Amino acid sequence: MKIFGIDPGSDRTGYGCVESDGSRHCLVAAGAISTAGVGTFPDRLLSIHTHLSALLRECRPDCVAIENLFFAANVRSALKLGHARGVAMLAAVEAGVCLVEYTPAEIKRAVVGYGRADKHQVQQMVKVLLQLPTLPVPHDAADALAVAICHLHTHSRMPPPGPGVGARGKAAISWRHVRVARSGPS
Amino acid sequence: MKIFGIDPGSDRTGYGCVESDGSRHCLVAAGAISTAGVGTFPDRLLSIHTHLSALLRECRPDCVAIENLFFAANVRSALKLGHARGVAMLAAVEAGVCLVEYTPAEIKRAVVGYGRADKHQVQQMVKVLLQLPTLPVPHDAADALAVAICHLHTHSRMPPPGPGVGARGKAAISWRHVRVARSGPS
Repeated sequence: MKIFGIDPGSDRTGYGCVESDGSRHCLVAAGAISTAGVGTFPDRLLSIHTHLSALLRECRPDCVAIENLFFAANVRSALKLGHARGVAMLAAVEAGVCLVEYTPAEIKRAVVGYGRADKHQVQQMVKVLLQLPTLPVPHDAADALAVAICHLHTHSRMPPPGPGVGARGKAAISWRHVRVARSGPS
Repeated sequence: MKIFGIDPGSDRTGYGCVESDGSRHCLVAAGAISTAGVGTFPDRLLSIHTHLSALLRECRPDCVAIENLFFAANVRSALKLGHARGVAMLAAVEAGVCLVEYTPAEIKRAVVGYGRADKHQVQQMVKVLLQLPTLPVPHDAADALAVAICHLHTHSRMPPPGPGVGARGKAAISWRHVRVARSGPS
């Protein structure tokens, strides 16, 4: 099973693809689509959609996992985030793959074992679980990998990591780092 | 000049296309894409994007005009609306036409002559200005026509209608009702 995680944002959209045969997990690709230098807001949406569609064609995942948001700092930022999330979901449904959503608490619980973990703990756990040489950066890529791992753990009913999770995670599952790809605006 | 107005919404997205040669205006098409019966939320986004893309290919407008929103009832509805607006903007930018945004106050001022006009006043003025036999329904279609008319008035620097606007509008500009098309989920 190959899962493509997305962490949408109008300035930077993280993505991370993880493959698993049930006991072995591989990092397929991860990175972020940066739209900071792209002209207008509609052009940014086009850039996010175009790059995600290309990555989905390349990765051919069985499923796309995306964070389910119910809150934002304010209505204005919620509207902006909604635009980016909308075109990301559209890319997934156009690719014909199933689309699943997880709340931030579900993702943290599945990856760190604690629903109120902070961003750094998530980043650390993604590094440990995927045996990466360094912390996955930018954090949008780490968040996207986290939602993909969340779906793998939830789908395969693997127990979420508990205290001392690094050793347990590594002992329970053999992780392999295959390739890290990045995509920015062309 | 042919302007395609969009009033996005996750349940119903209004559209209205108006053509003008500077002095004569024609209603080309208007209606609403209803997604109420469409399965999942991602499927609704796909339906909005697919139908708008088809309508833009059919109408071939010079410009797409869309309401610029800075507020919503709450963060949750802002997120939902943002998704629909995101895929609508994507359809416009993919069609390669210019995309302009107007605030609700700008639209009301351009169509009714008063920035705080209510929905019914806008609907009435669209009926009068386009010489429609009845009020344009649903109101999403009327709102989409209003944003298209707003761009025509703003672009051509026509004076906005004032008090007793119906008679003035009809005297100043010759409006013609050509066709009303509706699109729902297939």
